[in-house]
Amino acid sequence: MRFVAEVREQPAALLRVLAQAGDVEAAARALVARRPAVVRLVGHGSSDAAAVYGGYAFGLLPGWTALRDSISLAVHYDAPVDLRASAVIALSQSGRTPDVIEYVERARARGALTIAVTNDDESELAAAAEVALALDAGEERAVAASKTYTATLATLALLAAGCAGRGSEMASGLARTASLLADVLDPVERAVGPVAHALGDVGRMYVIGRGVESATAREMALKLKETCRVAAEPLSATALVHGPVAALDPLFPVWAVVSRDPALASVAAACTRAAEAGATLVASGSAAGDIAEARWTLPLPAAPLPVLAPLLSVLPGQLFAARLAAVRGLDPDRPAGLTKVTLAS
Amino acid sequence: MRFVAEVREQPAALLRVLAQAGDVEAAARALVARRPAVVRLVGHGSSDAAAVYGGYAFGLLPGWTALRDSISLAVHYDAPVDLRASAVIALSQSGRTPDVIEYVERARARGALTIAVTNDDESELAAAAEVALALDAGEERAVAASKTYTATLATLALLAAGCAGRGSEMASGLARTASLLADVLDPVERAVGPVAHALGDVGRMYVIGRGVESATAREMALKLKETCRVAAEPLSATALVHGPVAALDPLFPVWAVVSRDPALASVAAACTRAAEAGATLVASGSAAGDIAEARWTLPLPAAPLPVLAPLLSVLPGQLFAARLAAVRGLDPDRPAGLTKVTLAS
Repeated sequence: MRFVAEVREQPAALLRVLAQAGDVEAAARALVARRPAVVRLVGHGSSDAAAVYGGYAFGLLPGWTALRDSISLAVHYDAPVDLRASAVIALSQSGRTPDVIEYVERARARGALTIAVTNDDESELAAAAEVALALDAGEERAVAASKTYTATLATLALLAAGCAGRGSEMASGLARTASLLADVLDPVERAVGPVAHALGDVGRMYVIGRGVESATAREMALKLKETCRVAAEPLSATALVHGPVAALDPLFPVWAVVSRDPALASVAAACTRAAEAGATLVASGSAAGDIAEARWTLPLPAAPLPVLAPLLSVLPGQLFAARLAAVRGLDPDRPAGLTKVTLAS
Repeated sequence: MRFVAEVREQPAALLRVLAQAGDVEAAARALVARRPAVVRLVGHGSSDAAAVYGGYAFGLLPGWTALRDSISLAVHYDAPVDLRASAVIALSQSGRTPDVIEYVERARARGALTIAVTNDDESELAAAAEVALALDAGEERAVAASKTYTATLATLALLAAGCAGRGSEMASGLARTASLLADVLDPVERAVGPVAHALGDVGRMYVIGRGVESATAREMALKLKETCRVAAEPLSATALVHGPVAALDPLFPVWAVVSRDPALASVAAACTRAAEAGATLVASGSAAGDIAEARWTLPLPAAPLPVLAPLLSVLPGQLFAARLAAVRGLDPDRPAGLTKVTLAS
């Protein structure tokens, strides 16, 4: 199975990002020279989940404002926004996503510093941006992204750390994260099996996280939709209790991404509410053991730096999706109606 | 049914917002004086959907950067972000959402101009912000928001228009929108009946929109989760084709919010992909008739200004949710496990 093979390549992909650290450091210097009022992150699918991560990485490391921007505002509406005080970070594995390319072209024309992060440094997106950063993750053949997602997170972490003058600390942290990720591949793969068998008939699910793990919730929910045909919606822990909790029942489980970080109490409170609503709970992450209501607990080691937790936290979701697909008789390498590169906009 | 009664009060609520136009105009002057590099919008649930709308209203009218901010970055992580060049618009029907109040207190201490939009102008949130704008929508008793959602949209439209020097044009547009909304209440209520009966057993749904109608997709999906226990996920039209389309089948319908605006082609293309995947399609909005693949079409009149379309577009979703709840034997006024004010954070 290509997807699982690529999931298992993630530790190596993280080390390959480290080999690009010089380029990332140069991009960080260009960002610092511009000192943007806003860093605008754009991408679709897994790249959109990575964009969520980028918002936290820039907020937590240099203390900059970095937010997911609306592509349609620029591309479809041609809104007259002045971008001279902005930087753009455009994320696309293929570098071929049409509206992301067009967004970058328009933003560059309006004065933004544009940076592309892509796995194809000869792509149209790489050419459109002022600065192109290569993931160098190796070709990703499974339709569902995995190693390019974590490599994108690693690149964003390095870039944000570089802007905070903490590039080498982050590089060490990433090297240690790659090693931790390699260590947990086998135990996590074993641990997800019983969960996938028990949830084999599930059609609906919420995946909750908060703060930096909001990105993980989005990416895990996307894997479940793509490869398992589960209607899995990502929600922040707080969004869950502001309405969606009303839909839960014992056949509508909740997967909670639970890391030991300042947002933990918020996630734990949402888990309590989900359990009260009768939902079956799965908890994964470095603080999964804190969720007493969880039917299944998939613990992970703590990341060397809290902002790197999502690079580990996504693994149980990736391997669970692969196993659940198998249980359901689906081929995760060939999701219905999808191709590796989405050329719609 | 309180919920439907309040849905039907929306035209009157829009006119009450117009009665506050002087206060909104004053807030717009304060914003223009500050000329923020970023307008940060925060809220949960329906207020989060309204925050999405605010991003488009400010982008399309004064051409400002307005984006949904991370509450947890400020409240849980205490990220050291300089907010002196920022304005905050905090949205909460009750004015009692704890982490929104805390976000405003922290943002104000860090130098942001803070504006609260709430239906209780004596609330803690109204007191925490420098400027408080009252919706004056009258008490909202149903747990699922309706009139406070559209009143919040109207307030944001007036505020953004005021920042663009187009306040009176927008006021006229809102008055005309209130009249159009009153005209379509009965025909839309009749039209959603057969759709609700046909989809009575549905457990999963996507609600898609793009651009300004992304807000409508979020709000409609939230109503379906809250009142009908449907796992309804909002997706931008482009996000649908970047993965989630793989989960669709004939029992997993897609509701498309289709307005005649520059993002229409993107939504129409996504509808084609959804139909190819076998999904049953419902299309609502001023350009619903353009979607040839739709099993049901719920047309609406065009809004007087394109940015006001979401104030009309949400109506079919509200009335469909009410009818579907009835078909399923649920009381939309009493969603399981929810209270009107959510005090978790």
